[in-house]
Amino acid sequence: MTVNYPNGKKNNWTAAVTSAGRRGMALEQDINATNAFYLSEDTAVIHKKPTPVTIVKVDYPKRSAAKITEAYFKMPSTTDYNGIYKGRYIDFEAKECASSTSFPLKSIHAHQLVHLDAVLRHGGIAFVIVRWTQFEETYFIPAKNMINYWNTASRHSIPYAWFQENGCLIPSSYVKPVDYLKILDRLYFEKGGNTSNGKEKENIQ
Amino acid sequence: MTVNYPNGKKNNWTAAVTSAGRRGMALEQDINATNAFYLSEDTAVIHKKPTPVTIVKVDYPKRSAAKITEAYFKMPSTTDYNGIYKGRYIDFEAKECASSTSFPLKSIHAHQLVHLDAVLRHGGIAFVIVRWTQFEETYFIPAKNMINYWNTASRHSIPYAWFQENGCLIPSSYVKPVDYLKILDRLYFEKGGNTSNGKEKENIQ
Repeated sequence: MTVNYPNGKKNNWTAAVTSAGRRGMALEQDINATNAFYLSEDTAVIHKKPTPVTIVKVDYPKRSAAKITEAYFKMPSTTDYNGIYKGRYIDFEAKECASSTSFPLKSIHAHQLVHLDAVLRHGGIAFVIVRWTQFEETYFIPAKNMINYWNTASRHSIPYAWFQENGCLIPSSYVKPVDYLKILDRLYFEKGGNTSNGKEKENIQ
Repeated sequence: MTVNYPNGKKNNWTAAVTSAGRRGMALEQDINATNAFYLSEDTAVIHKKPTPVTIVKVDYPKRSAAKITEAYFKMPSTTDYNGIYKGRYIDFEAKECASSTSFPLKSIHAHQLVHLDAVLRHGGIAFVIVRWTQFEETYFIPAKNMINYWNTASRHSIPYAWFQENGCLIPSSYVKPVDYLKILDRLYFEKGGNTSNGKEKENIQ
């Protein structure tokens, strides 16, 4: 198990990675389970990247595994997930939102949007998954829509209603808790064709 | 900086990650530099995945960054590098070989070949980069060739001559030390076309 970036805690304690360290990980676990199912069905090959860590000290005890004794979380240079589906390159970031009114723009780093924009430019499929934990709703947002909002927004957050207008609710099942490929099929692979020419629908509705 | 999997050292010491910890990293650094150049030119978006680590304990000191105090190296579930080039999904593993006669098959995990095979099946471009450090030669091997060898080999290593027959020597320049996209252009994007139908030349020569 890996942990997410700690959210600015100031307490001075050492903790085993338990429930506190797993905050915000329910979505990650659901996506990982979904990706594992896609992989087992041979539908898609999409994985979460490991949490980037800067390793400073490593202990090599006799007869046991190397132990990292000093390391630090590092800013990720890209997004958390990527892979391949129906011949297309897939790239996305996933975030939970605890608010019931708006999604803070700072949840997504500017360089992650720059990365998603580059993916679009090179013909990939780029998007963001946002879960509104209070509503138990998980939205698929094409990266283009998120980037447009970012470029033109006068505020620091995105209201809930915007997600309903600019995103798609992702269906959920027991084996595929975040079945986002259903949305991809509708938006990028409709009419039985692999639209591998890199052209994509920009609008959802 | 991150370190590679330690190669079974048994000494009981704690070390800062210096030259010893960087062994086998010259190729990684060369590929990272090349990828950074591709990114800066906007030619391709290809990144190394972070080294997978299982985090056990995290210390949150007052007024400073969270410090990981116990973590272990984890077996990677996929390959080290992936991304997008000319609309195609790219996926590869890179290895250095210190021998001057043969490349040990165990350098590449079976599940990594399974992963590369899945990438091919879904229409991506999958390959392996192997540097023969003694010859200062870096070869591009289509994953299909490596998988075929693995499936049919009666020995535990691949002789040097096989690489000359089944791979392509990757050109090198100061800004692009491992310019593997030149090989991709020749093998997968010849005749000015993006062969995004997933068909690939299986033979090099």
